[in-house]
Amino acid sequence: MKSRKLLPELSGYRDLQAMAQELKSTAMEQLFAEDPGRAADFTLQAAGLQLDYSKHLLTRQALEALLELAIDCGLEGDVAALFDGEHINNTEDRPALHTLLRASSSHGMDDRFKQVCESRDKMQRWAEQLNDGLRKGFSGATITDVVNIGIGGSDLGPRLVTEALKPFHGSVGCHFVANVDPADLQDTLLDLDPETTLFIVCSKSFRTEETLTNSLAARAWLTNAGANESDLDKHFVAVTSNLAAAAEFGIPSENCLPMWDWVGGRYSVWSAIGLSCAVAVGWTRFREFLAGAEAMDEHFRSSDPAANMPLLMGLLEVWYSNFFDAGNHVVLPYDNSLQRLPDFLQQLTMESNGKRVNADGRPLPYNTGAVLWGSAGTMGQHSFHQLLHQGTLLCPADFVLPLQTHTGMHEQHRRLVANCLAQSRTLMVGRTPEAARTALLGRGLDEAEADRLAPHLAMPGSRPNSVITMECLSPATLGALLALYEHRTFCSARLWGINPFDQWGVELGKEIGTEILGRLCGEEGSGEMDPATERLLREWRRAQT
Amino acid sequence: MKSRKLLPELSGYRDLQAMAQELKSTAMEQLFAEDPGRAADFTLQAAGLQLDYSKHLLTRQALEALLELAIDCGLEGDVAALFDGEHINNTEDRPALHTLLRASSSHGMDDRFKQVCESRDKMQRWAEQLNDGLRKGFSGATITDVVNIGIGGSDLGPRLVTEALKPFHGSVGCHFVANVDPADLQDTLLDLDPETTLFIVCSKSFRTEETLTNSLAARAWLTNAGANESDLDKHFVAVTSNLAAAAEFGIPSENCLPMWDWVGGRYSVWSAIGLSCAVAVGWTRFREFLAGAEAMDEHFRSSDPAANMPLLMGLLEVWYSNFFDAGNHVVLPYDNSLQRLPDFLQQLTMESNGKRVNADGRPLPYNTGAVLWGSAGTMGQHSFHQLLHQGTLLCPADFVLPLQTHTGMHEQHRRLVANCLAQSRTLMVGRTPEAARTALLGRGLDEAEADRLAPHLAMPGSRPNSVITMECLSPATLGALLALYEHRTFCSARLWGINPFDQWGVELGKEIGTEILGRLCGEEGSGEMDPATERLLREWRRAQT
Repeated sequence: MKSRKLLPELSGYRDLQAMAQELKSTAMEQLFAEDPGRAADFTLQAAGLQLDYSKHLLTRQALEALLELAIDCGLEGDVAALFDGEHINNTEDRPALHTLLRASSSHGMDDRFKQVCESRDKMQRWAEQLNDGLRKGFSGATITDVVNIGIGGSDLGPRLVTEALKPFHGSVGCHFVANVDPADLQDTLLDLDPETTLFIVCSKSFRTEETLTNSLAARAWLTNAGANESDLDKHFVAVTSNLAAAAEFGIPSENCLPMWDWVGGRYSVWSAIGLSCAVAVGWTRFREFLAGAEAMDEHFRSSDPAANMPLLMGLLEVWYSNFFDAGNHVVLPYDNSLQRLPDFLQQLTMESNGKRVNADGRPLPYNTGAVLWGSAGTMGQHSFHQLLHQGTLLCPADFVLPLQTHTGMHEQHRRLVANCLAQSRTLMVGRTPEAARTALLGRGLDEAEADRLAPHLAMPGSRPNSVITMECLSPATLGALLALYEHRTFCSARLWGINPFDQWGVELGKEIGTEILGRLCGEEGSGEMDPATERLLREWRRAQT
Repeated sequence: MKSRKLLPELSGYRDLQAMAQELKSTAMEQLFAEDPGRAADFTLQAAGLQLDYSKHLLTRQALEALLELAIDCGLEGDVAALFDGEHINNTEDRPALHTLLRASSSHGMDDRFKQVCESRDKMQRWAEQLNDGLRKGFSGATITDVVNIGIGGSDLGPRLVTEALKPFHGSVGCHFVANVDPADLQDTLLDLDPETTLFIVCSKSFRTEETLTNSLAARAWLTNAGANESDLDKHFVAVTSNLAAAAEFGIPSENCLPMWDWVGGRYSVWSAIGLSCAVAVGWTRFREFLAGAEAMDEHFRSSDPAANMPLLMGLLEVWYSNFFDAGNHVVLPYDNSLQRLPDFLQQLTMESNGKRVNADGRPLPYNTGAVLWGSAGTMGQHSFHQLLHQGTLLCPADFVLPLQTHTGMHEQHRRLVANCLAQSRTLMVGRTPEAARTALLGRGLDEAEADRLAPHLAMPGSRPNSVITMECLSPATLGALLALYEHRTFCSARLWGINPFDQWGVELGKEIGTEILGRLCGEEGSGEMDPATERLLREWRRAQT
């Protein structure tokens, strides 16, 4: 990546500062009143998704200036570089080709695309054989359950997709173990039978501490139940690039599916890392999931900036982070099967954009990645929505809403829809102290009591939120949704000037973790650590006796 | 509550501003170097918990000034008022007596304590009868599973406690349904048998939309399976204060346990709302849970300010929110069974303190409640820790760590401990660009490459975090932990001047939700809503055809 301008150096930045200042004291409803076309025009369609971004502190003029930022930072070229396989992950000197994983043609990268297709074929074979009951365990019994062992990108993506597509599940049960806390694996194995369980070990290096520890425990569970070393190939598949380590563990190469260094963990659900999903929903549905993402890729790649959904969402992120000082973003899927979406997006956005230097290594004098959080609606309404409505912090929100339900329970689903639209509207309209007072008088309170309580019922309103809708949550729309947030993350990254594809910040913790583990195991270590850590080490030792 | 000073009017505030300014550019390790007693002195013990607050941007002098804030805002009197049952929830003119729910004596509130004891007796009876297999369903089969139907405070607390105390579970299975999304109930009922399932409906008003909707669906599930109206008392318990509505639903008063208006939902796990936990772990363990909380209450009530754990944590919250502009707080339990802790604390802190006016209704010119988020370690290390270490935002962190494990898998647990201590230490020590460069050269990189990458590996360090440890996660330490955060929330609230016990901000959304539901059901409504909502309503209608 070429040396880049900092955000404040981009054309349009100063104008945006002035506009933001003015919009801070503008009522959002005023924006609708002044611009009758707003509700219709501030929407976009792409790949089966619809984005309504009308309820934002945003005018047409500000939108134009934001698009100017994008143009001046060279985003168009970056997008082309991303899809063309340039080494856009500059610190690791690699491309970032998650888009190739869901592509239906090679985009000129024939060798890599051939590898992708071979991996797909292998996934398809495993998915079909498992769903057809053709895979047997050590006792000859049919495999009925698979357990994905992985963490971070090797867990959050497959877990989300598998849960979200539950209405499409076949007969094989899918389970997920991630935490090094032994309780995670123990709880999962409680309901499973060693004779009929297959483990999918997902670790690029085959050395990830949590994954290896859990895999060893899973292996012991199998051998304790009577499996021999030679039976392990009936119970283990690996998704890894370290075939030697997998073989040493007992997984032959024909049971290994590839990972490549040109795909980061948090962008890898489209690869063999998604095998557990493919097993759960079957190969046809998994291909629809890939196709949905590819449709979003095509939209992102070819749409005009002003009609580009991921770009627009990236611009809104920068708009609130850098012009309104919002340090967080809340995602509220109004669909229980998307309850893991915030966890997935947390990794995607915070690991990608939690950086304090730009791609050139230059410290940045402005905020980058925000804290992303959230939960499935309507749960949050009974929890943190109080703060969304009446707190002092700005929390830009994305509502995600499928308009139809798979459950057949239409009346209940209608309530979900009503609540989603109501929260979005309430954040915008708020309630003036006068309106609160009138409402209180209407409840029969006397004037003094109404006066006293009105400030507590008043809500400022004009709190920004987007509504992302889709006809229903299908493999295709889910694929499009995840690709949308991937590209949004890319756009924000490039506006901030950072490389979203590395994660150097997690290394030191691993090194220090190894050192401390040595100390816990009684090793001397290379000297004293800080006094606080030393004291905690003594506490831990005391508690073991 | 008497009219209160605003935060900036409190004694010590200006001094703290100056100290914060200086500490922003102070290395935390320097604080340890200058003060050899720091590691030992910046710790506190209470009710089986230990708080290490040494890794904060905090000097002894700043701590003293923070304590001055607490004294000047009248916190000592507030604490007494809280425990004595004064109407500290002033906007609703009620006390907030969650502490009485776990008290072993009446504290002078004989009538209320008598009600509490009667409710406990009833809980004990249900818990024991269910665990002894004495409760039968409509077919005469023994009840084997209970399903808690509730949302918000009627869900998050019981769910957390039940999951966290899994090693103490008896034979009755406990399940939780909260979301109005029909998939939530459907998924839960899949594995259950109508003949052996008991529902606990938790809703103070017995009118909570989600809870009532799910309860009606549960009732239909039972009657479709052959239960008669007259059998419902074998399958439903209610925790409610609306006996009439429960009776109308089919739940007789002998199956109803009380809720009182002097306990808020988010503070109610200690009441009959905790029945599902009491069933899961048995009555003895549930009493230990209450006793652990009571021990923390006694500590909070009677300790000197400087040795007061909840107060100190509240002061730290205000310190970072108002002097360092942190708008968020991350909680990282290094125990998989505490994975719901962030969800629970999200409600506790954000619903309590997400307020923009003080208890007198005066708008506040400073930030109050922060966004609370987090996940179970080590999961976050493979997700959002990149941002904690290298992002631009300040994210004060609480690590929560049991020093022993129930699982018997000591080697794996040691890894969990090592990771927790390593993350805490890494946040503090960071890595200078020079150290990063040296590390890179040590890996065999040439000088140019080391120079290029060093800024990406460098980490600023001095990122504040607390470590809360306990011997093991038991009913008692869990009770103490939740009470600790309750009182921390109260302390921050009083420093900010707000009433943490109301939640007026959720009302308008409910009203608008009812209006929109009417529109979705084809009602005319009282006029047009905003153009964005009207457009979304049209979209929804189109999608239904």
